[in-house]
Amino acid sequence: MKENLARWLMRRALRLVGDPPVRIRLWNGLTEAPPGVAPRFTVELRDPQALATLLVNPHLYFGDAYAQDRIRVDGDLVEFLGIIYRSGRSAAAPQRGLYRLFWDWQARPRANTLQGSRRNVRHHYDLGNDFYRLWLDPQMQYTCAYYPTPDAQLEEAQRAKLDYICRKLQLRAGDRVVEAGCGWGGLARYMASRYGVSVRSYNIAHEQIVYAREQARALGLQDRVEYVEEDYRNIDGEYDVFVSVGMLEHVGPDNYPQLGAIADRVLTPEGRGLIHTIGRNRPGLMNPWIERRIFPGAYPPTLKEMMAIFEPNGFSVQDVENLRLHYARTLEHWLERFERHAEAVARMYDADFVRTWRLYLSGSIAAFTSGELQLFQLVFTRAQNNALPWTRAHLYTDSSEAGAEERKVHAA
Amino acid sequence: MKENLARWLMRRALRLVGDPPVRIRLWNGLTEAPPGVAPRFTVELRDPQALATLLVNPHLYFGDAYAQDRIRVDGDLVEFLGIIYRSGRSAAAPQRGLYRLFWDWQARPRANTLQGSRRNVRHHYDLGNDFYRLWLDPQMQYTCAYYPTPDAQLEEAQRAKLDYICRKLQLRAGDRVVEAGCGWGGLARYMASRYGVSVRSYNIAHEQIVYAREQARALGLQDRVEYVEEDYRNIDGEYDVFVSVGMLEHVGPDNYPQLGAIADRVLTPEGRGLIHTIGRNRPGLMNPWIERRIFPGAYPPTLKEMMAIFEPNGFSVQDVENLRLHYARTLEHWLERFERHAEAVARMYDADFVRTWRLYLSGSIAAFTSGELQLFQLVFTRAQNNALPWTRAHLYTDSSEAGAEERKVHAA
Repeated sequence: MKENLARWLMRRALRLVGDPPVRIRLWNGLTEAPPGVAPRFTVELRDPQALATLLVNPHLYFGDAYAQDRIRVDGDLVEFLGIIYRSGRSAAAPQRGLYRLFWDWQARPRANTLQGSRRNVRHHYDLGNDFYRLWLDPQMQYTCAYYPTPDAQLEEAQRAKLDYICRKLQLRAGDRVVEAGCGWGGLARYMASRYGVSVRSYNIAHEQIVYAREQARALGLQDRVEYVEEDYRNIDGEYDVFVSVGMLEHVGPDNYPQLGAIADRVLTPEGRGLIHTIGRNRPGLMNPWIERRIFPGAYPPTLKEMMAIFEPNGFSVQDVENLRLHYARTLEHWLERFERHAEAVARMYDADFVRTWRLYLSGSIAAFTSGELQLFQLVFTRAQNNALPWTRAHLYTDSSEAGAEERKVHAA
Repeated sequence: MKENLARWLMRRALRLVGDPPVRIRLWNGLTEAPPGVAPRFTVELRDPQALATLLVNPHLYFGDAYAQDRIRVDGDLVEFLGIIYRSGRSAAAPQRGLYRLFWDWQARPRANTLQGSRRNVRHHYDLGNDFYRLWLDPQMQYTCAYYPTPDAQLEEAQRAKLDYICRKLQLRAGDRVVEAGCGWGGLARYMASRYGVSVRSYNIAHEQIVYAREQARALGLQDRVEYVEEDYRNIDGEYDVFVSVGMLEHVGPDNYPQLGAIADRVLTPEGRGLIHTIGRNRPGLMNPWIERRIFPGAYPPTLKEMMAIFEPNGFSVQDVENLRLHYARTLEHWLERFERHAEAVARMYDADFVRTWRLYLSGSIAAFTSGELQLFQLVFTRAQNNALPWTRAHLYTDSSEAGAEERKVHAA
């Protein structure tokens, strides 16, 4: 490749991501950086294909090339991706006709029809329980933890998250809970064993359901926890509590009014609901590489978009908490454990898989740290329900051992 | 009036408000109730004009006729209005052509242009400080209080509200605070005296500003609290904190993006904002009688509508709390005090004025109790601000005397 052309193409690639303080080095040693900035990182493009795909869509193909080891980054990956997120804010998507169409077409999330959801969800969650067990906590919580203090460990923080959700839902012994999307079923088991409630949890990821059922049996909870391998759209019955942790990302905004209608159909007059989801400050698609390679069909909503669940169904929003920095911390803990087991993961899959997940976890830390993504935990009730906690103080003052003892009594 | 016609008109009036369990009795003794319900209240229409205006628009003219003593209600007014709110949910506005147009035209809120706002706000808040002093707490807080416990008294709850807002805003000595809409200035004085911050408060209600300045001088706070008789749209400068308590109701949804742009213009990178406002679960206008006779131009937004303040300006919502039942309690305390001073109010104004305010306060209790209205307290920051409180526990565990002492030290 002629030097002038190569330089022009590198500058163009940098411009597509908002001219970050990053130097590109080609396979032939040529380097280029945005004008007037001091580069803090060097990205090595190890063959011409890496450059070519970056020019087509850096947000989509950087990840692929990184996974295939065609691109290397010197220095801390999380910090590098944070810089890319921040400079990306000022970068415009291409404006011109066909190229723009192609760009948008590439970025569209996969549809979440009944069939599409099953395909999308299995792509990710049925990778194999052994893989997730390597780096998740013992409760297999694959959602944002809640760190009572910044230096809490992952296990403690995941337990605290489970309990925090139970408190926000004012769980009482005997309550009937329905869960939309249950992962490996940890929340359902926690609720049943600690709060004496019965739980019916819906999930379409087969491997997770199998694991969840085994665990419930091992704990003797099979009479109080039922895992149903069905889409949330098939939820029926009557419940005191509706809870959904980390599923809304996979629902898609078109289906929000329907999700709310389901909660409306099954909740009692004094029923409580909680939705825990990744979100955004402004509407926007998931990073296209993550949507494509990691989470097909995923879409993180803004609070405004989420209101399509509640407003048409007359629900009243009681409490919204943004736990963005807790998700950054959770992901840091996951990445740390993942790296400790990188060799085992490479043996289970291959080196590309390890790099794919390294990039995904690192990019997610960067997204939550830089404020690109949010984590919303929202509590809702029916409009006319006056059986509300008087203040939120009980969420914080009740965490003593005495409180725990009292809950055990209730649960007995 | 022929008996058949009279009965037909009464049934029609009842249908317009959703056929509540209420009996109408006319000046001539004729009574009518919705078919198949056991009436729990009797509404006495004392002359033909009362019936005529109810048929034009019960939501607008019931209040006028009640104020003029053309309509009387037997039994507890709050309970009666609660029934009307609840049955109103199932009542449709008239569907037919011209009548519908007239109905909508009557219900339109008055415009909140710079001039319109001044006129609208003075209509209500400049009624006279002596009037409000009769039934508000000593800090002259005319917004929802925060009751740490359900049996707290008004004074304590209003002080707790002021402090709760300061904690949610993480006030630190030396912070520069701007306040959009300050009432009689109590929050600004509390912030300056307890947290050692400087405050600039904007308000267009002249009588309130005069009172606020007198109070600040009396407390020796004139160097740290500045009350500016200007529209919030004229806010300038740079601030660590943006706060607005009970003003958004008067802003109007068209002006929300501009309000957010003002916060964006004046807040530092680590700035914090709080908006406290009456709201709704679904979009809808203020009760037309209240909009007309009490709060011209008022509009309570849904959370979705409120997002027009934050999303276009890239703010991140950190915390939303719904304090609906606290407003019902606040209004109960206000009504109790108002009734104790009803004779004094009648001497200051007249008997119609007393009935107008009795109806307004009672109707507001009913609206918050029945879930017709909400009270949202929302905290926001810039998207990239990571200097956030780690959890919300500090809002609840820090209320000891030790905490207060510590704050005094900071403020000194």
